[in-house]
Amino acid sequence: MTGKGRLLGLGVGPGDPELITLKALRLLQSAPVVGYFVAKAKANKGQGGNAFGIIEAHLAEAQQRLPLVYPVTTEKLEPPLSYEAVISDFYDTCAVQIARHLDAGRDVAVICEGDPFFYGSYMYLHDRLGAHYQVEVVPGVCSMLGCASVLGTPLVYRNQSLSVLSGVLPEDELKRRLQDAEAAVVMKLGRNFDKVRRVLRELGLDRRAHYVERATMGNQRIVPLDEVEPMSSPYFSMILVPGEKWRG
Amino acid sequence: MTGKGRLLGLGVGPGDPELITLKALRLLQSAPVVGYFVAKAKANKGQGGNAFGIIEAHLAEAQQRLPLVYPVTTEKLEPPLSYEAVISDFYDTCAVQIARHLDAGRDVAVICEGDPFFYGSYMYLHDRLGAHYQVEVVPGVCSMLGCASVLGTPLVYRNQSLSVLSGVLPEDELKRRLQDAEAAVVMKLGRNFDKVRRVLRELGLDRRAHYVERATMGNQRIVPLDEVEPMSSPYFSMILVPGEKWRG
Repeated sequence: MTGKGRLLGLGVGPGDPELITLKALRLLQSAPVVGYFVAKAKANKGQGGNAFGIIEAHLAEAQQRLPLVYPVTTEKLEPPLSYEAVISDFYDTCAVQIARHLDAGRDVAVICEGDPFFYGSYMYLHDRLGAHYQVEVVPGVCSMLGCASVLGTPLVYRNQSLSVLSGVLPEDELKRRLQDAEAAVVMKLGRNFDKVRRVLRELGLDRRAHYVERATMGNQRIVPLDEVEPMSSPYFSMILVPGEKWRG
Repeated sequence: MTGKGRLLGLGVGPGDPELITLKALRLLQSAPVVGYFVAKAKANKGQGGNAFGIIEAHLAEAQQRLPLVYPVTTEKLEPPLSYEAVISDFYDTCAVQIARHLDAGRDVAVICEGDPFFYGSYMYLHDRLGAHYQVEVVPGVCSMLGCASVLGTPLVYRNQSLSVLSGVLPEDELKRRLQDAEAAVVMKLGRNFDKVRRVLRELGLDRRAHYVERATMGNQRIVPLDEVEPMSSPYFSMILVPGEKWRG
């Protein structure tokens, strides 16, 4: 791999620019190329996406920006198109773009909101390029811990188990898993919000549940579960059901 | 609360001193008093514990060190003593010590390995003091994400669920929960290691499992699961069962 650039997968934390680590910042500033995922609507407006916003102030003029623009913003597509196929092609294309820089000897930092290996899009680049290039991954503060901190609520005590669940799970499956959990986090709410709230209510967990939007970001909102408008729940929203306090 | 000091719960990350956030570092350096938990054996040798080792280089002479020395190092005690009672008294005493500084108007930073609200001892101080003082909690990179980064292995893809489990769970319960998990992390191995490995083998998950000791620390070890000596597994060890790769 001599002479080739390194792929750097950098977690930049949940939103507050101060929640980046010293290591991620050092590697970010050392990289001649900085890659970031961004939705098409934002890219068209010349914006850089959430992760980019977190680190933008730290970049020098000379660092090349490499926007990786998602071709779709929803997982619902009309046949014969499938989200899986479209997004897979997209990651292939991104990998080729990045490999071009790596082959030319330039390090590429790909920035990731939260942590690179915790539901991050970086993972799909890592799986494509990791075997062929020197890679360094810097873990970050993940969004669920950002949420717990702004709520001021401990998440898991002692020997409690924690279940991190996706809101897309079918209702019965979600119910079964939440029933079993001592502490839980439900991500990917969006249009699943109403279903998730219904299940929490059925299980009597709504009293322990907290809803947070865009934790640690400037436009953060903490809203009582009962007052959330189901259709307004944004991508960066989450429900936490902290474990019962251990009176230790 | 005017005139009183603030309680600062600072996550300092999994071990590598560079994995502290800018915010935790800023607040750490601003605090006149720095509290940290430490085992009695280490304290007797004049040492400061793992979290303290991570941040020691950043402290100024003038900052007061406040060691919080655990009275016990094992959860097995002879009756009439119980771990729960002994440790609860200990946290009460710590809270009183810290409150004395807060009442005198001095901020107290309590440093926490990983994240303060993710199985951290800080939580027990937070629950005792949080209602009476101004509190700020800074989330940190948690140990399981430190592990994933050094393994170079994505932990959870897309809509997979993640189960974080304690090795102290009874064998059948552990089996049931691991069977149900798409991705899993098992913490608190220690003397539970052999049981956990047996369950992973029975479920055929041992092929996907990774064992890591002291991830991101200087003395980090990544050992094939089959080669771990059950009785040598230290406190800071963990097993990760990453989710199946999503070919997106």
